Amino acid sequence: MNGDGRKVFHRLATIEEAARMLEEAATHVPEPERVRLDQALGRVISKTVYSGIDLPPFDRAEMDGYAVVSSDTDGASETAPLRLRVVGRVDAGSAYAGEVPNGCCVEIATGAPIPRGADAVLMVEYTSRSDGFIEVYKPVTPGENVAYAGSDLEIGEVVLRKGSTVGVREVALLASTGVREVEVYGRPKVGIISTGNEIVEPGSKLCPGKVYDVNSHMLEAAVREAGGIPLSFGRVGDDMEAIRVGLESALNGTDLILISGGTSAGLGDVVYRAIGGLCDPGILAHGLHIKPGKPTVIAAHMGKAVIGLPGYPVSALMVFNQIVKPLIHRISMAKGKGERTLEARLTQRVNGAKGRRWFLTVHVLNGVEEKAYPVFASSGAIGTLARADGYIVVPEDLEYIERDEMVQVRLFGDHEDKEDLVLMGSHCPALDILLEVLFEEEGISARALNVGSMGGLSSVARGECDLAGIHLLDEETMTYNAPFVRRAGLPDWCLVKGYRRRQGIAIPKGNPKGITGLRDLIREDLIFANRNRGSGTRVLTDRLLKGIAQELGIEFKNLVGKIRGYRSEFKTHSSVAAAVGQGRADLGVCVESAAAAYGLEFIPIGDEEYDFVINPASKDKRAVREFLGCLRSKKFKEMARKLKGFSFQ
Amino acid sequence: MNGDGRKVFHRLATIEEAARMLEEAATHVPEPERVRLDQALGRVISKTVYSGIDLPPFDRAEMDGYAVVSSDTDGASETAPLRLRVVGRVDAGSAYAGEVPNGCCVEIATGAPIPRGADAVLMVEYTSRSDGFIEVYKPVTPGENVAYAGSDLEIGEVVLRKGSTVGVREVALLASTGVREVEVYGRPKVGIISTGNEIVEPGSKLCPGKVYDVNSHMLEAAVREAGGIPLSFGRVGDDMEAIRVGLESALNGTDLILISGGTSAGLGDVVYRAIGGLCDPGILAHGLHIKPGKPTVIAAHMGKAVIGLPGYPVSALMVFNQIVKPLIHRISMAKGKGERTLEARLTQRVNGAKGRRWFLTVHVLNGVEEKAYPVFASSGAIGTLARADGYIVVPEDLEYIERDEMVQVRLFGDHEDKEDLVLMGSHCPALDILLEVLFEEEGISARALNVGSMGGLSSVARGECDLAGIHLLDEETMTYNAPFVRRAGLPDWCLVKGYRRRQGIAIPKGNPKGITGLRDLIREDLIFANRNRGSGTRVLTDRLLKGIAQELGIEFKNLVGKIRGYRSEFKTHSSVAAAVGQGRADLGVCVESAAAAYGLEFIPIGDEEYDFVINPASKDKRAVREFLGCLRSKKFKEMARKLKGFSFQ
Repeated sequence: MNGDGRKVFHRLATIEEAARMLEEAATHVPEPERVRLDQALGRVISKTVYSGIDLPPFDRAEMDGYAVVSSDTDGASETAPLRLRVVGRVDAGSAYAGEVPNGCCVEIATGAPIPRGADAVLMVEYTSRSDGFIEVYKPVTPGENVAYAGSDLEIGEVVLRKGSTVGVREVALLASTGVREVEVYGRPKVGIISTGNEIVEPGSKLCPGKVYDVNSHMLEAAVREAGGIPLSFGRVGDDMEAIRVGLESALNGTDLILISGGTSAGLGDVVYRAIGGLCDPGILAHGLHIKPGKPTVIAAHMGKAVIGLPGYPVSALMVFNQIVKPLIHRISMAKGKGERTLEARLTQRVNGAKGRRWFLTVHVLNGVEEKAYPVFASSGAIGTLARADGYIVVPEDLEYIERDEMVQVRLFGDHEDKEDLVLMGSHCPALDILLEVLFEEEGISARALNVGSMGGLSSVARGECDLAGIHLLDEETMTYNAPFVRRAGLPDWCLVKGYRRRQGIAIPKGNPKGITGLRDLIREDLIFANRNRGSGTRVLTDRLLKGIAQELGIEFKNLVGKIRGYRSEFKTHSSVAAAVGQGRADLGVCVESAAAAYGLEFIPIGDEEYDFVINPASKDKRAVREFLGCLRSKKFKEMARKLKGFSFQ
Repeated sequence: MNGDGRKVFHRLATIEEAARMLEEAATHVPEPERVRLDQALGRVISKTVYSGIDLPPFDRAEMDGYAVVSSDTDGASETAPLRLRVVGRVDAGSAYAGEVPNGCCVEIATGAPIPRGADAVLMVEYTSRSDGFIEVYKPVTPGENVAYAGSDLEIGEVVLRKGSTVGVREVALLASTGVREVEVYGRPKVGIISTGNEIVEPGSKLCPGKVYDVNSHMLEAAVREAGGIPLSFGRVGDDMEAIRVGLESALNGTDLILISGGTSAGLGDVVYRAIGGLCDPGILAHGLHIKPGKPTVIAAHMGKAVIGLPGYPVSALMVFNQIVKPLIHRISMAKGKGERTLEARLTQRVNGAKGRRWFLTVHVLNGVEEKAYPVFASSGAIGTLARADGYIVVPEDLEYIERDEMVQVRLFGDHEDKEDLVLMGSHCPALDILLEVLFEEEGISARALNVGSMGGLSSVARGECDLAGIHLLDEETMTYNAPFVRRAGLPDWCLVKGYRRRQGIAIPKGNPKGITGLRDLIREDLIFANRNRGSGTRVLTDRLLKGIAQELGIEFKNLVGKIRGYRSEFKTHSSVAAAVGQGRADLGVCVESAAAAYGLEFIPIGDEEYDFVINPASKDKRAVREFLGCLRSKKFKEMARKLKGFSFQ
């Protein structure tokens, strides 16, 4: 404990150490169970199945034809056919009661048992029939067109060995030996408890300071995917007693417990103490040498693992994948699928995480070779995680991985269907609509990565994507985009005009503080939500403020020194609107659609130009041509009209 | 039709043609549906989800510390700390009601919203606190340790685009934006009808000529795995009316119909006519240019596909994978996982299938490089299929693939956990037990491929496996195994003595025909089940028959000429016992355990020696040493004692 009464992490473990601790302490396994064949898919056999029958169960005709004594056909030919008397017929599903004497044959269907006395099947193609006799045009060898009993699987042979996973072929094999039920390892019941005063159930209203409960749902899905049975033990606040009660009932009814902590260190401590107080032997490690996922608690109770997961979904999922999934697989004897990996070239230098193993999410984009773009995001950023393709492991002892080094990307999914079109740049709601129309009308799938205008432009210049959406205001010329495209070394024709987005001042509904414009910013009771330096909106704002300073006859520096919140750096239009909507600021400059999303009033101050830069190498791609066509289409403009403040050419 | 009234296949289609026909004719898709978040895993989004909130929903503290006005911290350092008054505290889940004036700060927990007036979070580590004030040891920049509203995902932004598959991360993302339900493409209901007089439900008694219904269960599992909902419309015999009725009700209640034909051409014809009679536009193709899977019917009714699958499970599964699975994926808008493939060296020449595309199953074994062993089996051989690792595609226009060429193997599963030990050779029930003990006691997993004694010996000689179980009788010396090992060029020490298996004459229970020995074989009322030429048992039998010929003073050739069934070539001990057990023969020579499995009486005639040949390169492998230890272990001998007729050293 430090002076503030906060728990300081101690006994940090590596993933390997944590796995070893759990291997020793978490010895409990779910009971095996008997399941019907139609429930067996994906399960793991817990008791070797031996065959009670031969496969095939009898010597079976492999062809339609005649069951014969093979020696009776010796010497037969097209020119000198032999004659055999047909003494009967046997179909699939029945058995011939008599026998086949020399000189005779029995008509036989594929799948029927070879009658007594016969030792081969003569294909119908090599015979002709009339008056109860066949002419034989070809000799057969003993066993020809016969599948012998037990030739596929013998009576007493192993059908499926303990530890085998039941797939489609195994279901077929079990059915073919007459098995209706198999004994399989139990699927572990995994208790899930989410904690945190800030979390509320999706679908309910989001009060100030609250967020939706992600971990319960995410862990449920992750447990299900790993082959476990998720059982929710509810969502509890930052309350020792409630956590204790939840944990206690989970310990009784499940095989493994996941308790995801809140995001603050204080709550982590409560979870830690609840686990420590209830479990025997208790806590094995407090903290992992990984990033993200450090605030993890590894514990055990009476042979069951109890894992305290970090509150942030991204961290929780990473720890789940590294620690919990292998554990679920181990105790259910499942094999688990190997991660798919690919080699890619790293697009920027990555510094190591100083003693922690770093699971760094990346986007994978492919041109001539695959490229891995690191995504440096907060572990709260689940949207960013969902858009990523995989992650790379930066070892704990590594100082850095240099740009352009080849790295191994572990893929989250299959990364198999490539998009027709890759866009990078600034996010725009109209672009979302454009891409929807493009998919609906032309079947072209696109992927848009939000890396900001400058990021998008550089990516085009480096040839990493097809298109970028940008809105960059040049301070000198006060024109949009073109100067930047030129400076990036791209030909002018690469810039395609997109549309205009109206910018203005967002103020709360009803304008309670009587704001008339940016000039009011000098008022002491007002707080401004300013955009980040480098953003076009900030350039625009500063230009307007410079005008105001001139009018007021004061220095720009002095003016902005008086503005509360001038130094703030809201990174998106949306965050400006949110700050005003939530009362954390009184006004801010953003696009009209963002203000409208928060139900704010809006005083227009000018339009910004959202344009597209085309990668010269992509200009002849069908997807790019269709994209540009779509941009000018009536359909797109009609659909985008629902957005406030956009104007289209 | 040919003269026999059997349907001759016409209009054979390639797989590509069949897919194109279905693309045009099978346009029906299941209705989209709304599902709760906990049911959404694996489903495909049918309606783009836009976010109703920003992520995070407010400017969020990323660290425990103090919310400050960043300009208040300018110039702070360890040596010259600045002082700020603490005016309150805000926890995750709540919101601070007041604001942060200059010179003040608010204690803040990770996850809590930044209070009005503050623009950064100062980490607790860079402060010390006393008497309602903090000392600030480090300046913060605007926005430091703040995750801005909408920085992860903006209000109005696309959460999941139509066509996205919901994985664990997508569940998390949906939950985080407050989504409880999503609209997803419907899973197709797939009607399954099995036909054939020969099929009975697994678990029931197997009467003569019957086999268990594999296709119903296999297709159910395959449909489920492909993402469809299997609906069984029963098992019907070779009865036009019953098939018609089943097909009609399936057409009404499902999105796609699979009807698996019996194994005989006659039944195929009934199924063909039933489909042709009921469906509009009806049959599109009758027969596919593939092997196995030729007798496939491709049809459609009112936009729904109707596929007549071959009766043999192996063929049915191949057609399912090539035609039906992509169809299920297409109409449910699912992506489907790509097949895993690997490069392997072909161990023997494979001749093309003359105009048919051949899906040839292979085993993959790995030494220095992966090797692909073709498995030439009947399409009835589901056991063989289940043991195979994958298949290679032999193109229709190819004459042959030469031995040692590299081929691309499409894997059935993951082929990821390599066995510790690979055995090839002759199947033996005692070996099954040995491998079970080895797994239980030593955790060593083994894979045993039944390729016969000679096949196993050659594989060891070629270095393709670790061990082979063999029982080869040398006719000249009348000794087992050693002469063969020598001839294979292997050193003597490679042969390790295994155990002895008693051979003898199997006769029906109660010996109704009063058989006393092989000498009775000259009786005209008796039929002999003889083993295949080249088998040790056949060598032994012939040796005994030569003795009898000598005693009787006749030529061996004349003796065997009198024996009914002498020319038969039963390939396994089990098939000999089955033939006797099922009355297709009256006596045969096999090992005692096989006779016991069929409840037969047994007249011992001698022991055969079942030994192991070790690959010299594997002799130091732990798995091989443990195997040999296990072979001599008390545990193995105790467990193997339940088998009849085995004797252990």
